[in-house]
Amino acid sequence: ELPEWGLDQRKLYRHFVFPTFIEAWGFMSEVALLAETQNHHPEWTNVYGRVEIYLTTHDAGGISERDFRLARAIDLL
Amino acid sequence: ELPEWGLDQRKLYRHFVFPTFIEAWGFMSEVALLAETQNHHPEWTNVYGRVEIYLTTHDAGGISERDFRLARAIDLL
Repeated sequence: ELPEWGLDQRKLYRHFVFPTFIEAWGFMSEVALLAETQNHHPEWTNVYGRVEIYLTTHDAGGISERDFRLARAIDLL
Repeated sequence: ELPEWGLDQRKLYRHFVFPTFIEAWGFMSEVALLAETQNHHPEWTNVYGRVEIYLTTHDAGGISERDFRLARAIDLL
C-alpha cells in the first residue's frame, strides 16, 4: 500500500506539485480538515505550488497506524 | 522596522506558535490570502501549532522590498 509515499528522516514522505499557489492551498485546506478530523497533523512545507508532507507519530517515536491512515486519506483526495 | 523578523539562510524569518492547529491554520489562511493578493508567496512550514515563515525573492536572488511588504502585512494580522 501507499506506493506514492517514501521514507525520509524515518517519516512517511510524499510531495505534491501544483501549477499555482491557489491549487496548492486548496489541497492543503483539504488535508488540514482531514488532519483535524483525525486529530493527527502533518509536518509540512509549502513553497508556491509545492507541498511536502512528512508523517510521523511523536507519541510512538516513529511511524504508526495513524500515519498510514492519514496518508491513505490524503491519497483519496 | 520588523523587529520580530530575523535572518536565516539569507531569508527573512519569523516563527509563530499557537496553542492549537486550528489557530495555526486560521493564521496561515490569512497569510495565504495576503500572499496571493501580493502575488508573493512564503516558504513556510507548519507542525501543529508552529508556523515558520521564510521570505525571499527568487527573482532578485535575495531579500527584496516585496519580502518586507509581506512581512509588514503579516505583522499587522
